[in-house]
Amino acid sequence: MPRYKLTVEYDGGPFVGWQRQPNGPTVQALLEDAIFAMSGERVSVQGAGRTDSGVHALGQVAHFDLENDMAADKVQAALNFHLKPNPISLPSVEIAPAKFHARFSATWRRYCYRILNRRAPPTLDRGHVWHVPARLDLEAMIDAAAALQGHHDFNSFRSTACQAPSSVKTLDLLRVGRDGSEIRIDVGARSFLHNQVRILVGTLRLVGRGQWSRRDVEEALAACDRTRGGPTAPPEGLCLMEVRYDLGADNSGDAEVASDEE
Amino acid sequence: MPRYKLTVEYDGGPFVGWQRQPNGPTVQALLEDAIFAMSGERVSVQGAGRTDSGVHALGQVAHFDLENDMAADKVQAALNFHLKPNPISLPSVEIAPAKFHARFSATWRRYCYRILNRRAPPTLDRGHVWHVPARLDLEAMIDAAAALQGHHDFNSFRSTACQAPSSVKTLDLLRVGRDGSEIRIDVGARSFLHNQVRILVGTLRLVGRGQWSRRDVEEALAACDRTRGGPTAPPEGLCLMEVRYDLGADNSGDAEVASDEE
Repeated sequence: MPRYKLTVEYDGGPFVGWQRQPNGPTVQALLEDAIFAMSGERVSVQGAGRTDSGVHALGQVAHFDLENDMAADKVQAALNFHLKPNPISLPSVEIAPAKFHARFSATWRRYCYRILNRRAPPTLDRGHVWHVPARLDLEAMIDAAAALQGHHDFNSFRSTACQAPSSVKTLDLLRVGRDGSEIRIDVGARSFLHNQVRILVGTLRLVGRGQWSRRDVEEALAACDRTRGGPTAPPEGLCLMEVRYDLGADNSGDAEVASDEE
Repeated sequence: MPRYKLTVEYDGGPFVGWQRQPNGPTVQALLEDAIFAMSGERVSVQGAGRTDSGVHALGQVAHFDLENDMAADKVQAALNFHLKPNPISLPSVEIAPAKFHARFSATWRRYCYRILNRRAPPTLDRGHVWHVPARLDLEAMIDAAAALQGHHDFNSFRSTACQAPSSVKTLDLLRVGRDGSEIRIDVGARSFLHNQVRILVGTLRLVGRGQWSRRDVEEALAACDRTRGGPTAPPEGLCLMEVRYDLGADNSGDAEVASDEE
């Protein structure tokens, strides 16, 4: 019974998120439907990150098992065929070890949040950036980001719906940079709380506008209270870029990893 | 009577091209309508390049005149407002000298053609890349491109509808490079023949597939006969990136520049 590891790309715009639900189309459900169309088997697809409605992915990772053996390149071709015309695509499919789990084996996740910071609205990147017309102070955002990086209780920076047992996380990476009129915020951690990246970005935007100081950010972090964190940035700027695995380690059942949802 | 110079971005997908025509929406017509909505004045907007149906722009340049003076930033804000919800946007608007002409004063144009060269279809870049699933030989394409760069009669590489009086052009830039699974072809010249970039790209794809050699490309160029050039690549991979001006020079009425259409 082979296990397949998929790299999954999608435009999150038309979907109500990764996870199968009755309210609308989801990436997980469309993948499961494509697998059924290919193989006649009803399987469950597990993803590394349960991205929210409207959030994109270029490097989501997922896995599923088949009863009947198929070559990985045949699976890739068949699923890409059956996924049409949905904006979901599999750049790679490989056979994975039986102990591989897309969610529980993941040791690092990286998201990128893109802000288009200019007066003119987006065109080619419409739906893939957050349009912030008012000028943002990049240096102030970089400075405030330094206060958020590292090992902290991020209770002020998770949605009230977040079900993770602990709000303590380690943000290994929180880099704010500019590329032309775009501000990119790269965030990396073993796992994230629900809406953590979007609340961090919403907070950094307040700093960029001069409405909050670095001191305000530090106090919000210390308060461990969601009402003290900044607003949640919209989903369209967020993209899951990369998931890393260390298959030498046994990460199954890791509570921190298990909580990932963005 | 001030003259305004616009930088224009657009997603070419929904339009039948730059130039006003009865068959469907065009970027020029929507700009002229937005100017009318802003000012009550019916003006003519001149663009640097008459991009074809489906071709995108990040750096198109255009100009128009108003009877009544308005500050450039007011014009920018008003036009971006009236252009909604069309995927057309003005990243910059400035007052230009009266002798400035977006098309006739232009001294250099750069296009980028993007090929997604992998088996999996595009998602976030859908409609903005040409999807070529079969593997392309990058080195062969780079080698053949060298035979096309420079000063040549490009009669084999223009559409039969091209009305330029001469098919002799100077391709200053023809660079083929890879970025992950994307092949980018950057092309720069004072001006282009109709469909020239797309026919160059269609030809280079034959080379990348091993169907044509560099020698075949050289023979096609020497033949000066459209039936000997390669096929025309689809419009969705093409984007007008940049137009340069040298306002010290008097380029008005330059026949080579006047012919530009892609």
